[in-house]
Amino acid sequence: MRTVVPTALEQALTSAVDAARPWAATPPGARAHALETVAGALDAHSDELVPLALAETHLPSARLRGELARTTFQLRLLADRLRSGLLDDVRIDHADPDWPMGPRPDLRRTLVPLGPVVVFAASNFPFAFSVAGGDTASALAAGCPVVVKAHPGHPGLSRLTARVVTDALEAAGAPEGVFGLVEGLEAGVAAVQDPRVRAVGFTGSLRGGRHLFDLTSARPDPIPFYGELGSTNPVVVTPAAWRERAEAVAAGLAASFTLGAGQFCTNPGVVLVPDVPGLLEALPPVSGARMLTPGLAEGFVRALDALAGEPGVEVARRADGTAYDAPGAAVLTTHGDVALARPEILSAECFGPSTLLVGYRDREQLLQLVDALGGQLTATVQAGDDDALARELVPLLAEHAGRVVWNDWPTGVTVSDAQHHGGPYPASTASTTTSVGTAAVARFLRPVAFQGLPDDALPARLRDDADGPRLVDGRRVGDVGGPRS
Amino acid sequence: MRTVVPTALEQALTSAVDAARPWAATPPGARAHALETVAGALDAHSDELVPLALAETHLPSARLRGELARTTFQLRLLADRLRSGLLDDVRIDHADPDWPMGPRPDLRRTLVPLGPVVVFAASNFPFAFSVAGGDTASALAAGCPVVVKAHPGHPGLSRLTARVVTDALEAAGAPEGVFGLVEGLEAGVAAVQDPRVRAVGFTGSLRGGRHLFDLTSARPDPIPFYGELGSTNPVVVTPAAWRERAEAVAAGLAASFTLGAGQFCTNPGVVLVPDVPGLLEALPPVSGARMLTPGLAEGFVRALDALAGEPGVEVARRADGTAYDAPGAAVLTTHGDVALARPEILSAECFGPSTLLVGYRDREQLLQLVDALGGQLTATVQAGDDDALARELVPLLAEHAGRVVWNDWPTGVTVSDAQHHGGPYPASTASTTTSVGTAAVARFLRPVAFQGLPDDALPARLRDDADGPRLVDGRRVGDVGGPRS
Repeated sequence: MRTVVPTALEQALTSAVDAARPWAATPPGARAHALETVAGALDAHSDELVPLALAETHLPSARLRGELARTTFQLRLLADRLRSGLLDDVRIDHADPDWPMGPRPDLRRTLVPLGPVVVFAASNFPFAFSVAGGDTASALAAGCPVVVKAHPGHPGLSRLTARVVTDALEAAGAPEGVFGLVEGLEAGVAAVQDPRVRAVGFTGSLRGGRHLFDLTSARPDPIPFYGELGSTNPVVVTPAAWRERAEAVAAGLAASFTLGAGQFCTNPGVVLVPDVPGLLEALPPVSGARMLTPGLAEGFVRALDALAGEPGVEVARRADGTAYDAPGAAVLTTHGDVALARPEILSAECFGPSTLLVGYRDREQLLQLVDALGGQLTATVQAGDDDALARELVPLLAEHAGRVVWNDWPTGVTVSDAQHHGGPYPASTASTTTSVGTAAVARFLRPVAFQGLPDDALPARLRDDADGPRLVDGRRVGDVGGPRS
Repeated sequence: MRTVVPTALEQALTSAVDAARPWAATPPGARAHALETVAGALDAHSDELVPLALAETHLPSARLRGELARTTFQLRLLADRLRSGLLDDVRIDHADPDWPMGPRPDLRRTLVPLGPVVVFAASNFPFAFSVAGGDTASALAAGCPVVVKAHPGHPGLSRLTARVVTDALEAAGAPEGVFGLVEGLEAGVAAVQDPRVRAVGFTGSLRGGRHLFDLTSARPDPIPFYGELGSTNPVVVTPAAWRERAEAVAAGLAASFTLGAGQFCTNPGVVLVPDVPGLLEALPPVSGARMLTPGLAEGFVRALDALAGEPGVEVARRADGTAYDAPGAAVLTTHGDVALARPEILSAECFGPSTLLVGYRDREQLLQLVDALGGQLTATVQAGDDDALARELVPLLAEHAGRVVWNDWPTGVTVSDAQHHGGPYPASTASTTTSVGTAAVARFLRPVAFQGLPDDALPARLRDDADGPRLVDGRRVGDVGGPRS
C-alpha cells in the first residue's frame, strides 16, 4: 500500500526526476567540479556549521571540525577519482571472429547512474554520514540526484548544510533539483516506496533500517537498499597479546569503546579475552559523556539493562547515572560457556559506551566463539609477536566481517580506495557493497554493454580515443590518465 | 515460517557447508584447474549428454552442441581469469601519515566468497543456464559451494550432468560436497530460506522468481537473490533504417523472434516501427517449432491470447495450432497511441515465438514510447547511415536496458569480460550485476579490507610480492600477470 506523498517530498522528487537526465549527461570533469565546489562551500561555512552542530549534537568542537574535514576530503577524493576515470569500470572486447564459443561482436561496457537516490542521514555523524556525507557524495558522483531525509537529531544543521550544498551545486552549474532535503518519518517511509526513487542509502538502527528494507523489497519493482544496520565489532585478544602487552590492550580498549560516548557503528562491543584474571583490573576507569539525543541515551540504557539481565552476564562496572547527560559507561563480563549457549548475546548491540568481555577457556573455545559471531562491520585481533593463533584467526574473522583490524582499534574509518565498510547482515543489507571509500560510488551505478555501436554513437569514455584505466580484451591497460573534461 | 527441509537438500547443504572453508581456501590456480577439469569432462561426455538433451528438450542437435561448447568455454574462460587475478579486485592503500583527512593505516582489500550458493536451473538452456551453466561456473569460480535445483524439463540430463561435474571436481581434488543437485519445487523453496545458504542464482519466470525473491527478502538475514525474470527486449526501427533497408530489417526480425521457438530471454518481443505500411508485408512467413515443455507452450498461448485480447491490439499473423508441437508463431500489431495509453503492453512478455509491432507516428511519439519501456535485458536500435535519431536513442535506451545493440539482434549473448546480461527490474532483481560474462563471478564475492596486517598474516594475493592487476594508492598497476599457483 502506497503512503500519501508529503508535499515537500513530492517537490523534491519531481525536481530530482527532472535533474536526472542532465546530471547523468554531465561529463565527469564537470561533475567533479561540482563536488569540489560543494567541498569548498562547506569549508567556507565551517564557522557557521560547526557551532550549530555543537549546539545540536553536544559533540566536541574538535571532533566536529575533524568530521567536517573528513566530509570535504571525501567529496574531493571522489572528484579526483571521477576525473581519473577510475569509477567508470570501462571494459572493451573488440570484435573477434575467432572467439572460441563463436564470433564475438564488439562489446563495450561502462556504468550508468541508477536515477534518483534517497539518503537517510545518521544521528552520530552530523557531517560525514548526514546531509553532505558519504552516501550523498557517492550518489552525486555516480550521476544520481539525491534527496536526503534529514535526521531529527540535528535539524538546524541539516537545513543549513542543505542550503550550502544547494547553492554550491547551483554555482557549479549542476542542474536545478539535483539535491533536495526532506524531513520527517512520513516522508522517509513514502520515499522508499515511491516509483521515482531508484536506490536508498541508510545508516541507522537495525529496527528502523529493517523496516525500510522490507518496504523497498515489497515494491512492485524492488530497488537496492544499502543499509548499514548494526555490528558489535568483536575484538579477539590472543593469549600472547595478553601476556606481552596487557596494559596497552586494556588502555586501547577503554579509549576505543568510550570514544564519542560509544556512538560509533564500529564501537568494540564484544571482546574475547583469555579466561585469566586481570583484564578488568587493567582497564582504566571509564566514564560516559553526554549522548547525542535523549532517545539514544534511553535506547542505550534499555539495551544495556537487557544484556545485563541475561543469565551469566555480570555488570563489572557501570558509571552512575542513566540520564541523558551521563548515561553510565559500562563494562559487562561473561564466560565463553554462556555465550556459546546463547550466541545472540554476541550480537546484542548497545549503542553507547559499553563493552562485553567474554572470557574464553582455550583455543578450541575461542574458535567456537568466532564461529558464533554474526555479521559484523569489523573484527579485530590483538596479537602478540610471532602469533600463530592470531594468523589462524584472520581468515576466520574475515568470514564474519567487512574489515579485519590487526593490533589497532576498529573506531576510526579512513576514506580511501581500499576501504570497505560493510559486512554480512546486519552489518549491511548489501554485503557486496561498501558505504565508505571510493568503491561506495558503485552502489549507485549499473553496467550497460554496448554492442556493435559506431564509435561516434558510443558514450565518450568508451570511444577508441578515450583515456583512463580499462580492461581491453581481458587485459588491464591504461594507468590512471590525466584530467578529463 | 521455515519450510521443512527435504532429506536430499539437507544432505547437499550439510556437505556444502563442510566444503565451504576448504574451497574458499583453495588457491585460484587449483580452483581454475577444477573448472577446466569439469569443462574437459563435459566435452568428453558430449556424446551421452547431447542425445539426452535432445530427447528431453526437443532442441536441435546442432544448437545443443553449440550450447555445450558455450558452457565449457565459459568454465575455461573463468579459469583463465582466476589465474590472471582479474577476479580478485585487489586494492592496496599503503599507510600514509599525510593523508589529508588524518593518518591512514595500511589498508588492503580483496574479495572473499559468500558461502554456499543455490542455483535454479532454467528450462530453455539445458546446458548454459542449467546444472553446469553460468551461475554454477561463476559461484564455483568465486570459491562458493553450489547446490543446483534441477529444472524439471530435463531431469535425466540434469542428473547425468551433475554426475559428470561431481566426478570431475573429485578428480581435480576439490573438496567433497562442493557441488550438489536437488530436485523438486519443495527443495527450492526450502533452500532459499535455509540459513546455510548465502546467495541464490535464478533464471526463470517473473512469477516464480518473484516468489523466491520475496522469500529471501523476508529471511531473518536477507541474502542476495540474483534473478533474471523477464524482458520484452524492445527493438527500435528508425525511419532511416526503414527507408534504407526494410527487407533486411524484416528478415532479421523474423529470424530473431522465431529462433529456438522464441524461447530466449532476449527474444525481441516488442518492435517500435515507423507508422508506415509495409513492415508486415515485408516480414517473411513465420512458423513455430515444438517448444521445450507442454507447460511452456500452454503459458505462451495463454500470454499471447491475453495480449491479443487487449483493445487496439490486432493479430496480424498467427500460425495454426495451439498444441505443444506447434504453438503458433504470431505477429501482433498495435499503434503507439494504444501503447502509451496502456504502457503495460510494452512489458507483456510472451515467452515463445511472437513479437508485437508498435507503429509510432513521429519522433516525439517514439521518444514517449521509449520512456514508457520497463526494465529490459536488451534494447536494440536498427539505424540508418548517419542516423542522428539513432544516436539520440542510445542513452535513452540505456536508461532501460542492460545491453544496447546496434544494427544486430538481441538473441545471441556472447560470454566475455565486457558482456552484461541484466538490467532494471524485472530484467534482473539485482540490476547492478550480470549473470553472463566474467563479471558474473563478483555476485558471489564480498569485499574485505585488512587493516595493519603484517605481510605474512595477509591473504597471499595481498602481500607485497604478489602479482596480478591491482589498484595501488589510487593508481592501476600491474597488467594481467602470469599464471598463479
